[in-house]
Amino acid sequence: MRRMNAEILSIGDELLIGQVVNTNASWLGEQCSLLGIQVRRITTVGDDREELLAAFARAWEEQDVVIATGGLGPTHDDITREAICAFFDTELVLDTSVLRDIESLFADRKRAVTNVNRDQAMVPVGATVIHNEDGTAPGYHFEREGKHFFVTPGVPYEMHAMVEKYVLPRLRAAFRSPRGSLTLLTTGIPESTLSDALPGIDRLVEGTRIAFLPSPLGVRIRITAQGDDEHTVRDRLQQLRSFIEERSGEYLFGTGTQTLEEVVGTQLRDAGMTVAVAESCTGGLITDKLTNVPGSSQWFNHGIVAYSNESKIELLDVDPTIIRSHGAVSRETAEAMAKGIRRRAATDFGISTTGIAGPSGGSTEKPVGLVWIGISSDAGTLAHDFYFGPHRIRTKQRAAQAAMDMLRRRVCSLPPIPTVLTESS
Amino acid sequence: MRRMNAEILSIGDELLIGQVVNTNASWLGEQCSLLGIQVRRITTVGDDREELLAAFARAWEEQDVVIATGGLGPTHDDITREAICAFFDTELVLDTSVLRDIESLFADRKRAVTNVNRDQAMVPVGATVIHNEDGTAPGYHFEREGKHFFVTPGVPYEMHAMVEKYVLPRLRAAFRSPRGSLTLLTTGIPESTLSDALPGIDRLVEGTRIAFLPSPLGVRIRITAQGDDEHTVRDRLQQLRSFIEERSGEYLFGTGTQTLEEVVGTQLRDAGMTVAVAESCTGGLITDKLTNVPGSSQWFNHGIVAYSNESKIELLDVDPTIIRSHGAVSRETAEAMAKGIRRRAATDFGISTTGIAGPSGGSTEKPVGLVWIGISSDAGTLAHDFYFGPHRIRTKQRAAQAAMDMLRRRVCSLPPIPTVLTESS
Repeated sequence: MRRMNAEILSIGDELLIGQVVNTNASWLGEQCSLLGIQVRRITTVGDDREELLAAFARAWEEQDVVIATGGLGPTHDDITREAICAFFDTELVLDTSVLRDIESLFADRKRAVTNVNRDQAMVPVGATVIHNEDGTAPGYHFEREGKHFFVTPGVPYEMHAMVEKYVLPRLRAAFRSPRGSLTLLTTGIPESTLSDALPGIDRLVEGTRIAFLPSPLGVRIRITAQGDDEHTVRDRLQQLRSFIEERSGEYLFGTGTQTLEEVVGTQLRDAGMTVAVAESCTGGLITDKLTNVPGSSQWFNHGIVAYSNESKIELLDVDPTIIRSHGAVSRETAEAMAKGIRRRAATDFGISTTGIAGPSGGSTEKPVGLVWIGISSDAGTLAHDFYFGPHRIRTKQRAAQAAMDMLRRRVCSLPPIPTVLTESS
Repeated sequence: MRRMNAEILSIGDELLIGQVVNTNASWLGEQCSLLGIQVRRITTVGDDREELLAAFARAWEEQDVVIATGGLGPTHDDITREAICAFFDTELVLDTSVLRDIESLFADRKRAVTNVNRDQAMVPVGATVIHNEDGTAPGYHFEREGKHFFVTPGVPYEMHAMVEKYVLPRLRAAFRSPRGSLTLLTTGIPESTLSDALPGIDRLVEGTRIAFLPSPLGVRIRITAQGDDEHTVRDRLQQLRSFIEERSGEYLFGTGTQTLEEVVGTQLRDAGMTVAVAESCTGGLITDKLTNVPGSSQWFNHGIVAYSNESKIELLDVDPTIIRSHGAVSRETAEAMAKGIRRRAATDFGISTTGIAGPSGGSTEKPVGLVWIGISSDAGTLAHDFYFGPHRIRTKQRAAQAAMDMLRRRVCSLPPIPTVLTESS
C-alpha cells in the first residue's frame, strides 16, 4: 500500500511574528499521523498573495493532501479565499445554504447580519463547502485527480470541528489502512518512573510503537499498532494495554481524550454520590473543571473559594485555633476544610486545597509550591502534602489534578495517594 | 532602506506528527520582528536528508537570513549537521574549544564523556561555532555574500540562550531598522462590528499595517509601523492608537499580553477596593481567573459556586420566591446573587452569573447559551442577559470574560454593558 503524503499550510501574519503559537499545525499533524498519512512538511506563510500562491503550487505539486488553515475571516487582511480562487482559476458564487448558516448564527446571538459577514457566503465554484457550525467562514474542499485540498478558518475550535466532521472522514475513506492507536491516561507518576515501571515495552509486541507524552496533568501513553488486518491491530493494542495495566494500574484513569473530571464525574454519577469542594490556593479551578462536565449538577453541589482565613473560619467552620497553631497551609487546616465543606453541603465527599501558589509567601519550612490536599468521606478524613514547584498557574493546575485524583482513588478504593509518593518519602 | 527577509526552518519528525508544538518558531518569529526583520515563511520538515536539502536551498535562495533549529542531537535520527555540510559543500573538523565545552559539561554532571558526545565536537569547516553552554551540541553560523545561515539545536532553552547571546547581536548589527508594534486588547465587540467602527484604518497612516485577531475572549488589534527613524515609528503607532481609542474606547481594556483579570485586579488594588464572586453557570472559572493574578488576595476575598437552587438560597440569601417566580436563570436571581455575595463578603463589588451552559436544560424562552450576569456596588445593582451560543465550555469562558468586563466598566465608570448590545437589542 502506497503511503499518502500531506502538507499543512498555516496562513497568517500573526504566526510569522510569533504572536500566536501554531497549535493548529501540531494538532493536524497528529490527526494525519493517526490516519497513517505522512505529513512531509508544515509551511507557514503570511497574508501575502504571492507567498500564498507559491505555497499552494508547491504543496499541490508535491503532496497527495493539502490542509490549509487561516485567512478566511471577514476583514481586509484575510486573503486566502481570493488566493485559492486564483490558484484553482475559479470565481465566487453565492451559496444560499452558507448564507442560511450565517443568518441563523446571528439570530441565535440576537445580532443583525452585517454585509461583511454576508459576503462570507460567497464560495469558490468547483469546491465542496465545508460547513462551519461555530463561525461565519465556511471551509472549502477541492478534489482533483485523486488529490485533496482542504481550506478551513484558523480559529482553533472552528477548525477542529470542521476537520473532525468533514476532513478526517473524507481522508479515512480515501486512504484506508489497517492501523490503530490507543492513548492511556495516567496521573500522579513522573515520566521516568513510569518508563522504568514498563521495562522493554517498546520491543514487547511486533508492529507497535509507544510514546510517552508528559504534561503538568500527567503522562499520556500513546500506542500505535499496524498489522495485516483489523483483528491483528486490535490484538496488538490489547497486549500492550494489558502489560501497562498490570504494572501501573492505579495511575491509569482513562483513555483517549477523556479528562480526569469526566472520569470521576461518571464514577460519582454511577454510584449516586455527590461532592463539594473547598478551595484556597486552587482558587476555583477544581469547581471550574468539575462543572465543565455536562450534567455535573447531578453530583456536584457547591464549592467555596475561601481565600482569606476569615472565610475559612466562617464558611467552612475551620476552628480558628487550628489556623493559629498550625497555619492556614497545614495538614490540620486541609482536613478541617474538607470536613467542613462536606458537613455544610451534606455531600458524600468533601475535598479541599490550601497551599502557597506564589510567587511570594513562601518560607524555608513552607516553600512556594507546597499544597496540602484534604479529602473527607464516611471512610474518614485525611490530607497529604505535595510539592508542585515555583510556577503559580502550574501549581494550581497540578494541585487541582491531584485533588481530583485523590477523589477518584477514594471512589475506586485505590491507595489514597500515588504509591510512588509513599515509596519516595 | 531595504527590508530584510528571513525564513525559520524547524527540523524534526516530532513536529510533523504533532508530538511537540513548535514554540521555537513563534519565539524566533517574535525576536526577528522586534529587530525589524520580516519572517516570510516558517518551514517545518522531518529528519529527512532530501527534504532538508530542498528546504535549505529554497530558503537560502529567497531570503537574507535563515535560522534552522533541531536535528543536531547525538542520535542516529539527527542528520542536520550532515545535511548542512552537504549543502555548503564542506566537511567536518575537530574543534578543540567545543570538545572542552563538552568535557566540562560532563564533569559538572559527574558523568563520563561518551564517544557519541565527543563526536559532537566535529564541526563544519567554514562555519563559525556558536557555543552551547547548556548542552553538548554546538551551533553553526555560515555567512556568505551578506547572507546569514544560523543552525542551533532544537531544545528550547539551549536555542534561546544561543540566539540571545550570538544570533540576535549579529543580526542587530547587520540589519538595524526602525520598526515597532503595538497590540490593543478589546472585549465585548465582534470583529466585524469593530472593523466597521474603524473605517479606512488600513489606509489611514503611511507605513503601518493592522490585523484583527479574534478569540472567544475578545478581538486583539495588532498595529505594526515602519519608518526612517524611531520617532516616526512611534508617531505612526500613536496616530492609529488615538484613532482606535476615539472610536472604540470603551471596548479597549489593555495592551500587549495583559489579561482582563490582571487589568481589573490592578484597578481594584489601586482603588483599594475588593470583590467577591457568586457563580452558577461559570462554575468557578471567574475566581480561577482572578486568583491566577499574583497578589489577588489583596482585592479578592472569596467566591461561592452555587450550582443548586438550595445553595443559592442558603449561601447567597436569594429569596426562594424569586427563584419560584422567575426561575434560577433570570435577571432577578442574578441581581439577588450579586447583592447577596456582596453583603455576605462585605466587599465593594459583588458579581454573579447564572445561565444555561448546556448541552441540555434549554427551552425556547431560555435557550442554551443564555447567561444573566449581575453586578452590585454602592452605585446600585443590575443584571444583563447575554447569548453565548451552544458550546458549554465556550459559554463559560465568554460569560466569565463578560462578567469581569462588567466589573471593569463599573470600576472605570464606563457604560455598564457594551454599547453594541444596547444598540442591537
